[in-house]
Amino acid sequence: MTEGLKIAIVGATGAVGQELRSILEQRKFPIRELIPFASSRSEGQEVMLGARGFKCQVLKKGCFEDVQIAFFDASDAVSLEWVMEAAISGAWVVDNSAAYRMEKDIPLVVPEVNGHLVESLMAKGAALQPRERVIAGPNCSTVQLVVPLQALHRKWGLKRVVVSSYQSTSGAGAAAMDELKNQTQGALTGKVVPAEAFTHQIAFNCIPHIGGFKDDGFTSEEHKIMQESRKILGLPQLRIVATAVRVPTLSCHGESVNVELERACTPEEARSAIRAQPGIVVQDDPSRNIYPMGLTAADDLVESGTGRDPVYVGRIRRDPSVDNGLSFWVVSDNLRKGAALNAVQIGEVLARSLR
Amino acid sequence: MTEGLKIAIVGATGAVGQELRSILEQRKFPIRELIPFASSRSEGQEVMLGARGFKCQVLKKGCFEDVQIAFFDASDAVSLEWVMEAAISGAWVVDNSAAYRMEKDIPLVVPEVNGHLVESLMAKGAALQPRERVIAGPNCSTVQLVVPLQALHRKWGLKRVVVSSYQSTSGAGAAAMDELKNQTQGALTGKVVPAEAFTHQIAFNCIPHIGGFKDDGFTSEEHKIMQESRKILGLPQLRIVATAVRVPTLSCHGESVNVELERACTPEEARSAIRAQPGIVVQDDPSRNIYPMGLTAADDLVESGTGRDPVYVGRIRRDPSVDNGLSFWVVSDNLRKGAALNAVQIGEVLARSLR
Repeated sequence: MTEGLKIAIVGATGAVGQELRSILEQRKFPIRELIPFASSRSEGQEVMLGARGFKCQVLKKGCFEDVQIAFFDASDAVSLEWVMEAAISGAWVVDNSAAYRMEKDIPLVVPEVNGHLVESLMAKGAALQPRERVIAGPNCSTVQLVVPLQALHRKWGLKRVVVSSYQSTSGAGAAAMDELKNQTQGALTGKVVPAEAFTHQIAFNCIPHIGGFKDDGFTSEEHKIMQESRKILGLPQLRIVATAVRVPTLSCHGESVNVELERACTPEEARSAIRAQPGIVVQDDPSRNIYPMGLTAADDLVESGTGRDPVYVGRIRRDPSVDNGLSFWVVSDNLRKGAALNAVQIGEVLARSLR
Repeated sequence: MTEGLKIAIVGATGAVGQELRSILEQRKFPIRELIPFASSRSEGQEVMLGARGFKCQVLKKGCFEDVQIAFFDASDAVSLEWVMEAAISGAWVVDNSAAYRMEKDIPLVVPEVNGHLVESLMAKGAALQPRERVIAGPNCSTVQLVVPLQALHRKWGLKRVVVSSYQSTSGAGAAAMDELKNQTQGALTGKVVPAEAFTHQIAFNCIPHIGGFKDDGFTSEEHKIMQESRKILGLPQLRIVATAVRVPTLSCHGESVNVELERACTPEEARSAIRAQPGIVVQDDPSRNIYPMGLTAADDLVESGTGRDPVYVGRIRRDPSVDNGLSFWVVSDNLRKGAALNAVQIGEVLARSLR
């Protein structure tokens, strides 16, 4: 293929990087050339994009020359060191790390919610400063939360949000998923597999600790959910509180959400509004035991072959403990909509103008 | 031992019944004779109480003769059929089923919170009607919630409670725990073990469905948490909303709790008040990765050998999304403090007067 874009993936061999490649291929992202960046350990290793193989390179001065879009799926430290280098080289950067998310002049984007921010930037064309070519993607647990929140806010106004998360091990990377599997196997056979990826054993256990603890007693993960949601929804004063808990599942995050709205709505009205929001599938038929779950979210994707990777919402009901209260349950694949797919969707907005 | 009480356990071979026997023994409950009741399948089978064996019997007319305390740890249907029979025979009944919990004239008791209700009944002595000798124990997920709520309410007044639960499979019985283990083993080796105890696969999955669904979209488990908490705390108008989720753990339930108080308190004040509440251990030192977890709750019991089976509370922090808001995380062993221990503690109040 001689048409299409020259793109780079920083962190191409990681859990999100792998998902990103598979989604780029599934969605037929127009790629002329891919440069996969990885650590020196993987240098020269070939990674696949469909039938085409590309050799991993290490990051070095000038490595982003002619790259049109660079996807960053590595650590905050790597992003802090290399994102601006890529932007100065002339690339658009979609950064999935936390490094730039809360910078005032960098848009934090979930395309279904605020994709217009990317379009506005594109419209400025050649007048852009390098820093204006950097777009941040939110934390996985934020992405799936803001999509239904936006649907509710648009119609009834958000007043307060209380969220408790049920986060899978894949959010901590491929090694963490292996740790869950090995530790679980060990627990079932009486063998102790020590915790490395987590602070404590995750097999058959829930750990109320994701990220680092801050002075206010919240974790960095909880801060991300609260601050990023405010920024994406454009509601800097939104009252929101989060508790983030790691649960012994392999993929997909669950969230129990209680919202207080400005104006009253029935569960049926909420269901319609949420269903109408792009990127969401409502699974809400309790009488038939239908509600979002990590396992079926993954199945649905495989069975339908749509590759839409939606955010699933169910258990929508009136919260009788507060005026205009609503409770619901959200599930999404944290590696896909929560990271890789969201980045590709941002890339697609960029690609429309770059081609 | 010729001293002590004649007691009965209905459901002596079930998950809670086994815990109950071990706790009665650990706490040296004064028992002269035990009648273990079980289904006809277990009739004649010997169950142990320390070194003493007692043969299982089946329930039949007159079977509670001379029994002083009958612990019911069976189904609602069994309790509906046999609790009054036991009370009419002259026994005090501690019923762990849901059958009588919400009856206006039956006390629903967590000794640390409202044990005085049992003492008031005892004080009436011979004047009691049979129905007045029935005391209900709450649902497991309620017990661990009301103990810290009571501590906060007493000092600062509860205004609203939002709770999301992380409930282990042991709450659904011994067969459900086996299902988690077998299904997990299957999932790790590519073998499908069908769901029987749960509506869907529980291995590596979270299921937002415990009990049956009601017309208002809540489950019976969520209703129990909301209604029983109001009754135990003596706050019939308390604003409370619950979401109950089954997680792939073997024992202990977790709860993410957000409360709105009438008056302001600092996290440190809340910590002190909760610590001072009998039956609670505060585990709240994030800088050392110390917070309540199902695994350490079980370990702590074994290591300390105290048999106190406390409710563990941690992650206590100010909830900035509401005036006088507080967030915290609660863990307790649902089979012990959540059921068997609570029943024994009620039995101990009774035994003080019966001896």
